[in-house]
Amino acid sequence: MAKDEVKLFGYWASPFALRVEWALKIKGVEYEYIDEDLMNKSPMLLQYNPVHKKIPVLVHNGKPVAESLVIIEYIEETWKQNPIFPEDPYEKAQARFWAKFADEKCQPSIFSAFLKQGEELEKAVKEARENLKTLEMGLKGKFFGGEKIGFADVAIGWIPFWTGMTEEIIGVKLVDEENMTLLNAWFKDVLNVEILKERLPPRDKTLAHCKNFRESLLSAGASASPST
Amino acid sequence: MAKDEVKLFGYWASPFALRVEWALKIKGVEYEYIDEDLMNKSPMLLQYNPVHKKIPVLVHNGKPVAESLVIIEYIEETWKQNPIFPEDPYEKAQARFWAKFADEKCQPSIFSAFLKQGEELEKAVKEARENLKTLEMGLKGKFFGGEKIGFADVAIGWIPFWTGMTEEIIGVKLVDEENMTLLNAWFKDVLNVEILKERLPPRDKTLAHCKNFRESLLSAGASASPST
Repeated sequence: MAKDEVKLFGYWASPFALRVEWALKIKGVEYEYIDEDLMNKSPMLLQYNPVHKKIPVLVHNGKPVAESLVIIEYIEETWKQNPIFPEDPYEKAQARFWAKFADEKCQPSIFSAFLKQGEELEKAVKEARENLKTLEMGLKGKFFGGEKIGFADVAIGWIPFWTGMTEEIIGVKLVDEENMTLLNAWFKDVLNVEILKERLPPRDKTLAHCKNFRESLLSAGASASPST
Repeated sequence: MAKDEVKLFGYWASPFALRVEWALKIKGVEYEYIDEDLMNKSPMLLQYNPVHKKIPVLVHNGKPVAESLVIIEYIEETWKQNPIFPEDPYEKAQARFWAKFADEKCQPSIFSAFLKQGEELEKAVKEARENLKTLEMGLKGKFFGGEKIGFADVAIGWIPFWTGMTEEIIGVKLVDEENMTLLNAWFKDVLNVEILKERLPPRDKTLAHCKNFRESLLSAGASASPST
């Protein structure tokens, strides 16, 4: 069999590209990483993802797959080693449920807290805390995957990293350490998993990037959301 | 092995419950259907879906699964007969991609057209048409699944039914028959698939329900979205 050609179009500060990289790393799949300039996207990216025109896109032997969670499922089914999902369909459904919850509820509310000010910030913070408290219900032990990381950890392990920076930027804690003991422990544990930790972008550079991104959105009065 | 106990908490006019029923029917799984009163949800529903408090919820031998697309994946993995997904991981990714696209882009824009008036309606109609035109790219032949229905057809086969009613209510065509020949054919073909057709709610009753729902939202000035 010819060697697989695997390319990943990403952006260094994108959590959605990061989670795809984590899945590839866990599987031990070799890939070429192409960092996109989001202000000037490459013709290749637009060709491979004509629908959303967004990163991440995985291109496997010339065939593109878009949407980060769809890509992770594809990676899991294509390379069988080191399964990311549990075998049991019920546990698999739970993992998908929590990844979806985090994408649809936690991420928008944390992003809203990141962007709002004054009274709107208070409301956003309250909502983000409620969603994070709910997310805690999905922990099956140390991780969402139980004693080792699974699909939900890979999908949403970026949340602790970006939430920490958001808290620093807005000067408000989103994780209530007393009231979210389990989630707070997961926030630390998941970023200490070697294979995840080593692919995190440098914190200082990412923090500066987030600050600039926030300033530009605030001054434009916009409320764009990051690409998934 | 003891007989499976399968319950589905739904709502007769919910497309998200409908798609789960379609998956169960395709698999030939026997189930008890519980129709919820959405204005006065049962304690069972709230117990089984404490996170979203929404239908549909599938309860299999006492264990609940929520979120309609997650439920369909669970059904596929639990009952192996009559596969809904293709075996090839790439085709599987395509099916997931289009189901997600329809949920995240087509559904909100059609719902927006359903609710808006005046200039806002024009904008919503334009957006719905663009999204439906994009959706057409996903057709692999007669169906999204190729020559027979697959995951994306089951997941989004409700769109033709509800779009037709929306067009009738707002008095504007969303499907451009000349410019969306393939999608227009799918709109007809998918609702003629016997196993899907026989579970559709009665059109007259659903149309009256949609009209009432629209009136109540317009008079409340709200923009609630249906449960997924």
